[in-house]
Amino acid sequence: MPVLVVGSIALDHIKTPTQEHHQLLGGSASYAAVAASFFGPVNLVGVVGNDFPPQHKQLFADRGIDLAGLEVAEGQTFCWSGEYEVNMNNRRTLSVALNVFDKFEPKLPESYRDTPYVLLGNIAPSLQRMVCKQIKKPKFVVADTMDLWIGMARPDLLDLLKEVDMLILNDSEATQLIEDDSIIRAGKKIAQMGPRYVAVKKGEHGCLLFGKNGEFFSTGAFPLETIADPTGAGDCFAGGFIGHLARTDDTSFANLKEAVIQGTLVASYCCEDFSLRRIQKLTEGEIAERRKAFGTYIA
Amino acid sequence: MPVLVVGSIALDHIKTPTQEHHQLLGGSASYAAVAASFFGPVNLVGVVGNDFPPQHKQLFADRGIDLAGLEVAEGQTFCWSGEYEVNMNNRRTLSVALNVFDKFEPKLPESYRDTPYVLLGNIAPSLQRMVCKQIKKPKFVVADTMDLWIGMARPDLLDLLKEVDMLILNDSEATQLIEDDSIIRAGKKIAQMGPRYVAVKKGEHGCLLFGKNGEFFSTGAFPLETIADPTGAGDCFAGGFIGHLARTDDTSFANLKEAVIQGTLVASYCCEDFSLRRIQKLTEGEIAERRKAFGTYIA
Repeated sequence: MPVLVVGSIALDHIKTPTQEHHQLLGGSASYAAVAASFFGPVNLVGVVGNDFPPQHKQLFADRGIDLAGLEVAEGQTFCWSGEYEVNMNNRRTLSVALNVFDKFEPKLPESYRDTPYVLLGNIAPSLQRMVCKQIKKPKFVVADTMDLWIGMARPDLLDLLKEVDMLILNDSEATQLIEDDSIIRAGKKIAQMGPRYVAVKKGEHGCLLFGKNGEFFSTGAFPLETIADPTGAGDCFAGGFIGHLARTDDTSFANLKEAVIQGTLVASYCCEDFSLRRIQKLTEGEIAERRKAFGTYIA
Repeated sequence: MPVLVVGSIALDHIKTPTQEHHQLLGGSASYAAVAASFFGPVNLVGVVGNDFPPQHKQLFADRGIDLAGLEVAEGQTFCWSGEYEVNMNNRRTLSVALNVFDKFEPKLPESYRDTPYVLLGNIAPSLQRMVCKQIKKPKFVVADTMDLWIGMARPDLLDLLKEVDMLILNDSEATQLIEDDSIIRAGKKIAQMGPRYVAVKKGEHGCLLFGKNGEFFSTGAFPLETIADPTGAGDCFAGGFIGHLARTDDTSFANLKEAVIQGTLVASYCCEDFSLRRIQKLTEGEIAERRKAFGTYIA
């Protein structure tokens, strides 16, 4: 089954304690679409400027991603610049230039409207809601979000929660949304606010999955000795998650657990190099290999 | 098979954001011995002052713990006072009075010397090493430690590592011992420094287990909505871990994984009330019940 991925497409400038890179392919949709492409067909919706490097577009094409929904607008592509601290967990945004993204309104090509599995990548909840209005009878809709929207667009986000099957956010965002220090209480409460499921990402500590009927699942992260750049790991998690659901066309809780693991594995590869450099050359065999090792690592 | 537990026995004064309690039974050996007692016979070695409340001693007796190694010295029992911050993860020590513990030198009764499973609870590595010298052909020796000893007694601790089968410490302690920000690298390195295995506790994020031949296991914590007092959870983890090993008399890596889970479950009960209030009335049935639920929570 195909997957629809909507989100940002960006040119990133990233600084870590040991390296610095410019004009990297980034953005929530870029990571998520490429991650999902290892599981089946992907329909991409996003916007880039006319400065968008052709090799970045080629990368999407090489992964077989449908680009009918990729808008090229007059102006510059969305730019994000960030820096990581030594522990690679804390990062600060140095600058953001929305550029063509500022006027972006996602428009789904007619051919995309009945895509059964939908990932609303991390963009403003108002834009995510515009997508919800254009899709017809989806089987499973996942929305990713971040602290910025919880702070700036809470009413929109709360409305969005009623329109999706699952919300993905990280641990500090979950406690921010609920204003409660406990991740467990926060996860359980969000699962009562609209979505049937909530995935709470904990970076190196893995992920918790909560269901509105009390379902719970916990998995660790794949143990990496070295992390080159964690940017996009959350988006790859989301892409791998929805990709697995679409490939198996099974939204049972047992299969959501496996989707969490598959997302975790794709995210682990993402962290091994900057931008999509590792992910773009990933193979299904490598995911399967890491799945086998992971099977012995977890209970 | 019986378990030998050596460690501190204390009277704790604990303050959390919502409650404050005095003269609580505490100390690494108290928690670990009671936790281990749900799995089989326990031999306790420790020291208390002549002010030690008879009801605390009775609690050990009620759990069937052998008290031949419990020394009663002239003076006051070791006292620890600590306060937790709102998130219950950060705590600070308000005061420590070693009292009779200051002159403590663990002496094993003859009847204890061939106990096959040994837990060196969190006390100075020099004292833990004294125990190693007194035990005969143990099957598995686990040592717990803390930041204080890594800072103050590093040479002793490094010597101890060569004498034990497994070290238990938390994530920040592992990175402190190795002077490396990565828990994964730290865990792997410690497993090359003497012990065959290293368990790295991560509080609410669960536990990682590393083996010197590259073995790895990760489990989440049992999801608790409310934590009354996390004091002693690490000691209960260690007690449940060694208890499970002793009961099954199996030190295969597969069984160490199960021991990590059993320790995790006993620790989860510990957090539900102050001191040993929840643990002392625990039943094997309750551990089994939580094990069953946990089985559906993890992969």
